[in-house]
Amino acid sequence: MDGVEKATGRAVYGQDLRRPGMLIGKVLRSRYPHARILSVDASRARALPGVKAVVTGADLVPGNTGQMIKDETILATDRARFLGEAIAAVAAVDQDTAQEALDLIRVEYEELPSVFDPEEAMKEGAPILHPDLAGYRAAPVLVRGPGNICTYTTIRKGNVDEGFQRSDFVFEDTFRTQMVVHAYLEPHATLAEVDETGRVLVWVTTQGVFSVRAQVAEVFHLPLNRIRVIGTRCGGGFGGKSRSLVAPIAVLLAMKSRRPVKLALGMSEDFISGHPRHPSVVRIKTGVMKDGTLVAREAVFIMDTGAYSDFAPVATSQGTTYCLGPYRIPNVKSDGYSVYTNKTSCGALRAPGSVQAAFAVESHMDIIAHRIGLDPMDLRLKNAFVEGDLSHTGQVFGPINLRATLEAIRDHISRQGESGPGRAWGVACGQWGIGGTSSAAQVKINEDGTAVLLTGAVDIGTGSDTALSQIAAEELGLRLEDMSIVSGDTDGTPYDMAAVGNRITYVMGTAVRLAAADARQQLLEMAGHMLEANPRDLEASDRQVRVKGSPERAVPIAQLAGMSHMKGGQILGRGSSAPQSPPCDASLVKGHVAPTRPGDTFCAQAAQVEVDPDTGGIKILRIAAASDAGRAINPRMVEGQVEGGVGFGLGFALSEEVMFENGKTLNPVLTDYRLSTSVDMPVVDAIILEEGKGGGPYGVLGMGETPNIPTGPAVANAIYNAAGIRIQELPITPEKVRRALREKKGPPVA
Amino acid sequence: MDGVEKATGRAVYGQDLRRPGMLIGKVLRSRYPHARILSVDASRARALPGVKAVVTGADLVPGNTGQMIKDETILATDRARFLGEAIAAVAAVDQDTAQEALDLIRVEYEELPSVFDPEEAMKEGAPILHPDLAGYRAAPVLVRGPGNICTYTTIRKGNVDEGFQRSDFVFEDTFRTQMVVHAYLEPHATLAEVDETGRVLVWVTTQGVFSVRAQVAEVFHLPLNRIRVIGTRCGGGFGGKSRSLVAPIAVLLAMKSRRPVKLALGMSEDFISGHPRHPSVVRIKTGVMKDGTLVAREAVFIMDTGAYSDFAPVATSQGTTYCLGPYRIPNVKSDGYSVYTNKTSCGALRAPGSVQAAFAVESHMDIIAHRIGLDPMDLRLKNAFVEGDLSHTGQVFGPINLRATLEAIRDHISRQGESGPGRAWGVACGQWGIGGTSSAAQVKINEDGTAVLLTGAVDIGTGSDTALSQIAAEELGLRLEDMSIVSGDTDGTPYDMAAVGNRITYVMGTAVRLAAADARQQLLEMAGHMLEANPRDLEASDRQVRVKGSPERAVPIAQLAGMSHMKGGQILGRGSSAPQSPPCDASLVKGHVAPTRPGDTFCAQAAQVEVDPDTGGIKILRIAAASDAGRAINPRMVEGQVEGGVGFGLGFALSEEVMFENGKTLNPVLTDYRLSTSVDMPVVDAIILEEGKGGGPYGVLGMGETPNIPTGPAVANAIYNAAGIRIQELPITPEKVRRALREKKGPPVA
Repeated sequence: MDGVEKATGRAVYGQDLRRPGMLIGKVLRSRYPHARILSVDASRARALPGVKAVVTGADLVPGNTGQMIKDETILATDRARFLGEAIAAVAAVDQDTAQEALDLIRVEYEELPSVFDPEEAMKEGAPILHPDLAGYRAAPVLVRGPGNICTYTTIRKGNVDEGFQRSDFVFEDTFRTQMVVHAYLEPHATLAEVDETGRVLVWVTTQGVFSVRAQVAEVFHLPLNRIRVIGTRCGGGFGGKSRSLVAPIAVLLAMKSRRPVKLALGMSEDFISGHPRHPSVVRIKTGVMKDGTLVAREAVFIMDTGAYSDFAPVATSQGTTYCLGPYRIPNVKSDGYSVYTNKTSCGALRAPGSVQAAFAVESHMDIIAHRIGLDPMDLRLKNAFVEGDLSHTGQVFGPINLRATLEAIRDHISRQGESGPGRAWGVACGQWGIGGTSSAAQVKINEDGTAVLLTGAVDIGTGSDTALSQIAAEELGLRLEDMSIVSGDTDGTPYDMAAVGNRITYVMGTAVRLAAADARQQLLEMAGHMLEANPRDLEASDRQVRVKGSPERAVPIAQLAGMSHMKGGQILGRGSSAPQSPPCDASLVKGHVAPTRPGDTFCAQAAQVEVDPDTGGIKILRIAAASDAGRAINPRMVEGQVEGGVGFGLGFALSEEVMFENGKTLNPVLTDYRLSTSVDMPVVDAIILEEGKGGGPYGVLGMGETPNIPTGPAVANAIYNAAGIRIQELPITPEKVRRALREKKGPPVA
Repeated sequence: MDGVEKATGRAVYGQDLRRPGMLIGKVLRSRYPHARILSVDASRARALPGVKAVVTGADLVPGNTGQMIKDETILATDRARFLGEAIAAVAAVDQDTAQEALDLIRVEYEELPSVFDPEEAMKEGAPILHPDLAGYRAAPVLVRGPGNICTYTTIRKGNVDEGFQRSDFVFEDTFRTQMVVHAYLEPHATLAEVDETGRVLVWVTTQGVFSVRAQVAEVFHLPLNRIRVIGTRCGGGFGGKSRSLVAPIAVLLAMKSRRPVKLALGMSEDFISGHPRHPSVVRIKTGVMKDGTLVAREAVFIMDTGAYSDFAPVATSQGTTYCLGPYRIPNVKSDGYSVYTNKTSCGALRAPGSVQAAFAVESHMDIIAHRIGLDPMDLRLKNAFVEGDLSHTGQVFGPINLRATLEAIRDHISRQGESGPGRAWGVACGQWGIGGTSSAAQVKINEDGTAVLLTGAVDIGTGSDTALSQIAAEELGLRLEDMSIVSGDTDGTPYDMAAVGNRITYVMGTAVRLAAADARQQLLEMAGHMLEANPRDLEASDRQVRVKGSPERAVPIAQLAGMSHMKGGQILGRGSSAPQSPPCDASLVKGHVAPTRPGDTFCAQAAQVEVDPDTGGIKILRIAAASDAGRAINPRMVEGQVEGGVGFGLGFALSEEVMFENGKTLNPVLTDYRLSTSVDMPVVDAIILEEGKGGGPYGVLGMGETPNIPTGPAVANAIYNAAGIRIQELPITPEKVRRALREKKGPPVA
């Protein structure tokens, strides 16, 4: 539904926002990775003609904010904890004046010792980022440890020590993943204005207008009805726009200047201040029998959250669970830590925690298979979770398709035939669930029988407006062309938690289906009177309500709609959904543990790679990606999610990495930070499983995040199969491959 | 709720609309009151640089449009029927270019004979405006007569001839009212754009976004879901903005130019092309007994609808009923005609039909009283409709308060004491009902327990946003400050027929009350579980749900709202209302008869005037206005409606008149067309009756239109009482008064 406006350039993104009298906002950022802020002198900036507002931490309502742990402020007050942290902001009549004003602000810093490595940060004597938070507990499920440990999570089931003792083999490996950014095409941008009564109006590129509303409400201590947030078209989010980097600052500037303020980040600014994917260190130790039966697994999962907690409590707990793998293991022990360091505050990025965990555990599974002489696919299939199993956190799995995705990949590879010399396939799988809370939707029937769908969900580029409209049309017996949609407006549309956590088609799709079915029921009841039939014997189809089996006894929906407006009132259908997790066994977990969530979905992928023995260059020849979609509402868009996920996974596997030197980002530009581009994309064979057993509408499962999980380990496993080298630290650059090849060969003969 | 933005000038009206790439539209209008259009040559206009579109009748989808009778097109095709009718329109880069383009369009006319007087137009041989419509029947209830008779309505009850025979007296009088304009402060304005898929987006100053949507859909044969109409703030409507004079033309220009087009009329252009109040000729004949008992009444009600029918079918039928007066009369006969003439197409203006009828029948009642030596108040009270009576159309009245308003006026006058010399009071009353079809509303509860009200009703300046929010807050146990409101957006808000027909607080108020009660019920059910109480024993009050009688057993609405978002889904309340008339006795009526409508409301007014015997000048000293509001949701706003109505009534009574010469409007400017201004306003004693028996929420009755009905005849009756002269044709100018005083005195003694 958004195709034409995007293809013609008419779609309005954050950068396109304009309002009469609008000012331009800009942000002053910390020059140090860790420093006490002794003073901020903005007097010269304020005196500059054209400057309408300068704000610092002193202008904030006192008190910390944060997604879960309240450990930050939108402008640093007494301390900056990463290089690039916002310290002050200005609003001026144009970009140049705003920049000039920033240059006039004098910040007096006292530099503090920094720590950049999470394992270093956990040690005694490391510089402490948040001394005031020691012993802090935000909520019973968030356990803060000593020092720089932000959150701590444990899972204990059975007895791993006994398990290791009775295993035929015990293997232990360590894996590391890097920081990568979302690299959405559209950086954060917003336009905020505040009316004379103090009511706040925000337009913003975001994944969740309601989450931005909550964020602004928290920062300014406002009731929610005093804020309206409207989503623009969104040029990608991938978890990085679940809230807004800029909206609260723009609101503060609008409050001070009493003018509309646009605050749009440049790509580099977004790079250094966004919430990138957490770097991880994962150590896994597994006890296994000769036949491949897994007996015990112990893991330590360390996430570098950077300067602030943001999404770390959830991401860390996800990783702590998922690094045990989607396998039946009677004895497990997993300890997860998120740790503060003086780097950009990390956050959610497409399956946060699971991507890092999967690289570790799926590489580790391959290593085990090779060491004990089993086929890696067979090892996985032997131990894979099936319906009725208990998850690592003691929750019962409903219908799940992990085996089916693995088998689909096995069959697909076998049909592809043998690989040539230096070429091989590698396999991995991934697990993800549905996140977030609730979604609600509404369907209004127009007087002529067309309909409007109202949903709080922002279409972040996934095509959710289209898929949700398809669902509504299907339920109402209408065609897609009969629908219009309003999405992403906190005043105008029903609630949606956000377009995050794989959830829109699943959760909002359910709400939409219920809303449309509710409207349909009202149509059927009206038609029942007219047709002298029991509404249960009626169906809505082809723009009519008709008696099942007697399609000649029918009344057009247009006629029913017209009548309702004359005699009763508009037909308004409503629906809500808030899928709840199956209960977690509380005896197994401590701290914030992500339970096995509703809507567990699995995928398996195989990468076919070719390694150049001379240069270490890696060529991805083909990716086979089997995903359990449950049901593909719009198959082309599901394939798009798979291809996009693979592209993400390949960048993560091979080329992307935010590089730092003393806390300073070295490559905050897309020329130096290497994404997978269309040139790098291999053929992707998207295999979509549609058994219709998912918990979403028509059996749908979430497809937004899962397909990017197994790509990294599949590539690493393929490289091992092709070249006999095992890279345990992403990204797998030609440099690392060449070094590994050299080390494998041993020193050159003198 | 809209006070601050209006006081500070931030409110966005139609004229304030701006969009990137916006063009300015202008309309070419007929130079003749009646002419065949032989050709329109727009080639030179199209060639002018900066002109992006020129449209004529040839660009329209074939077929007529119209509110009820399809007798017009948005641009005249083969014939122009009034001077000022739209013939072509241009869209250009600026106002000057647009004007220059208009001047370059060559229209070849063949002038046709015109007719301007409705009684002339009804005669054999008069020029016929709509020869193609002869015998046309739009719907069973719309009966078109021969020639220029647009609609014809009759009421017959009992036998008037027998009634006149057995009456002690029979009196007959004729009254005339003039054409007046709405004179809203904001002329019609709109901005239309059409996207690449052909979807239409319209911002417009209007009383009804859904009626404008229907209007655009009809003109362009579009499904409703392909059009979105959003209301701006509205600088007054008074019936003249129930649809839009400009939106369809702007849409056509936007379709042709593929650019946003703003089309905003100047005041004079609005004057000559708006839908002013129908001039009327009313002849009433009444048979009455010595004691004042009314026995029979016969009326002929002629409305001049101008060039097109527009609202004439309804307005004429209202007048046909209301010119019989709100009195019990066993034998009645009324014939109503609307007639085409070559003048501006008339339409709805604040109680259309009733205002004209009331001037006639309330003057006539006063004349009767004086002729038979009764007090005019007593004559009214003696015959006034009471609860349980049958209306002239055979419908049973529910609780009505006509007597109470008359008695309130009588008491008020008696307390005011005697009038001085040349001063007197005059009395009149008025009746009006609720018009239109349905309204729907929705209430969303935010996560923090504040709430959003969604209503399709545009706040046209009456304060309906505030009153409706008050109703929702009351039902939810919240405060007004806890509410926000979205109104007047066809995609974003539930349906509302329009802010017309006295209906918003009554009909939409009911929908809002039901929607809020529906949301409250969901809160009570949640709280019932928590408090272990039956929801029926709970109440929502003071931002809490609590056990009635045990206020300490309570849970904050904020907590319930937060829980619902986590565990179930947002609370969405919905409500609809479509009040239906009591059944009409079909044997009594023929043609389109306005039945006694739901929500009958009455008012009575007394005017105290002083007549200057030398100049004929009339000074209004005081107006006492008793209105049955049922319940005043917001008493200050109800008083505002009364004062506004009185101001309207005084302009109608004394000074306003659109004057024509050969079909050309002579005074289309507010310097020459005399409104009542603040200088002219007397003290208004607003007496608000609140028995709470109306059919709206809390017993509300409509208050938007009724208070302007009796002012005209009250003034005329007061002038008679003060100076002994009876003016039977509005407006009552000093010139007419002086002439009447001279005629009364007889010729000066030589």
